[in-house]
Amino acid sequence: MTQRIDEIGFGGKRLKQDKNAFCYGIDAVLLADFCEAGDGEKILDLCTGNGVIPVILSALSRPSEIVGIDFQEAAVLLAEENAALNGLDNLRFICADIAEDKGLPLDASFDLVSCNPPYFEKGRGLVSSASAKLVARHETTASLEDFVVAAAAALKNGGRFCMVHRPSRLADIMETVRKHGLEPKRLRMVAPYIKEAPNILLIECIKGAGKELKILPELVVRTEDGQFTEEIKRIYAG
Amino acid sequence: MTQRIDEIGFGGKRLKQDKNAFCYGIDAVLLADFCEAGDGEKILDLCTGNGVIPVILSALSRPSEIVGIDFQEAAVLLAEENAALNGLDNLRFICADIAEDKGLPLDASFDLVSCNPPYFEKGRGLVSSASAKLVARHETTASLEDFVVAAAAALKNGGRFCMVHRPSRLADIMETVRKHGLEPKRLRMVAPYIKEAPNILLIECIKGAGKELKILPELVVRTEDGQFTEEIKRIYAG
Repeated sequence: MTQRIDEIGFGGKRLKQDKNAFCYGIDAVLLADFCEAGDGEKILDLCTGNGVIPVILSALSRPSEIVGIDFQEAAVLLAEENAALNGLDNLRFICADIAEDKGLPLDASFDLVSCNPPYFEKGRGLVSSASAKLVARHETTASLEDFVVAAAAALKNGGRFCMVHRPSRLADIMETVRKHGLEPKRLRMVAPYIKEAPNILLIECIKGAGKELKILPELVVRTEDGQFTEEIKRIYAG
Repeated sequence: MTQRIDEIGFGGKRLKQDKNAFCYGIDAVLLADFCEAGDGEKILDLCTGNGVIPVILSALSRPSEIVGIDFQEAAVLLAEENAALNGLDNLRFICADIAEDKGLPLDASFDLVSCNPPYFEKGRGLVSSASAKLVARHETTASLEDFVVAAAAALKNGGRFCMVHRPSRLADIMETVRKHGLEPKRLRMVAPYIKEAPNILLIECIKGAGKELKILPELVVRTEDGQFTEEIKRIYAG
C-alpha cells in the first residue's frame, strides 16, 4: 500500500496521496494562493493530479464549481476520493489528454483556469524513473502550448489564467500566452532564500486584456536560518 | 548655462550633462555593469544620450570600439565632448533616428549592443514638459521594436543585446526580441528596497541562441535605512 492521507491545513482539509506518484508541494499551495479566487467563480484546474489545487481553492473561497482535468487515470481516481474525503460536492474530475480530447468543456464559460503543468519540455531536463512522476514532471503528452490553448478556449473574456512554472520557461510562456490571446498581467518570482535566484514563477494572464504587466515583490520562502518566512506561514495558514 | 561636469567615479571618469535634458541615473550604471563587456569587444550603444554608457563601459573593460547612436543632436554633441573629456579616442557618435536612417553601420559585426531606451510607449505614461526629456523617456520617435530590429541587425551571431527597461514592458520585450532572433538568456529584476516590487529590469538576449532563460537573484538598491546595499556600492565603485 503506497497511499497515505495527509492533513494539509486550510481549515482541516485532508489529502490522499500516492507516495509513488507525484505528491503535492509548495508550488501547488503558492498557485492556489496566487489565484485569488472569488466566491461563485467557475474554475478549471488543468494537470489537477490528486486534486490538491481544487481542494485548497475550496478552502480559500466558495467556487460555484471546479472541474479538474488530468491525463492519468490513477490521479483522477485519487482526486475523486479527495473531493469525497473533504465533503466537496462541487468538484468534478475528468481523465483526458487535453491535447487530443475534443469532448472537453472548453466552452468560454470559466472565470479562472489554474495550471501546475509539467515543468520540463519534451527531451529536456532529468527524467525521473517512476512513470507517474515522469508524466507529472515532463511534457510527455501535452505541451505548454496545449495547456495555454485549452485555457484560452475555456475562459470567458476577462477570465484569468494562473500558472506556476519554472523561471527558465518565462520567455516561452510570454510568447505562447500572447499568441493565444492571454495577456500577462501579474508576475511573481519565488526565491528559496533571500539573495538567491528565483526557482518558481507565478503568472496571471487575462483573456482579451490590454498590455501592462504588474510585477509583484519577490516572494522568499525561507529565512536564513531555514524557517518559513512570515508570508509563507500566512499562505500555508490559508 | 545649464551644463555641468560631474565626477562619476569609475576610475576618475567625468561627464558633462545638461540639467535641462536627461541626466544619467542608476539605470545607466546598472546596465553598464550588467553588460559584462569583455576586452576587445566592438560595442554599439543605442539611445546613447550624453554617452554615459560608453564612458562607463570604457572604464569597466577595454572595448576595441564603441559606437553610440542618439536621435538628439544636442545629446550627440555632449557625448562627443564627454569622449574627449575622458581621453577616449575609440568612441564614435552618430546622430540618427534608427527607425529611419538606412546609412547606419548595422552590419552584423558587433559583439555587444547596449540600450537604455525610452520606457514608455507612445501615448502612455506621464509626459514630461521639456522636449529633450520627452524624447528620452517616451517612444516619440523609435519604438521598442525599432531598437530590437537595429540590435539584431548590428550583432554578429552569438552577440549579446543588453537592455534596461521597466518591468511592466517584460511581455512586450520577450515577444519582440524572439520575433527578431534574439533569445532571452539572462534576466535580473531590480527592486528599490527589499520586499518592494521591482521597478527596473535588466535583460540579456543572445542572437541565434537556444532557449533557456537564467533569472538572476533580485538586485536590491537600498537597505531599509535608505543606504545603498553592498552590491550597489560595488557596482558604483566600478
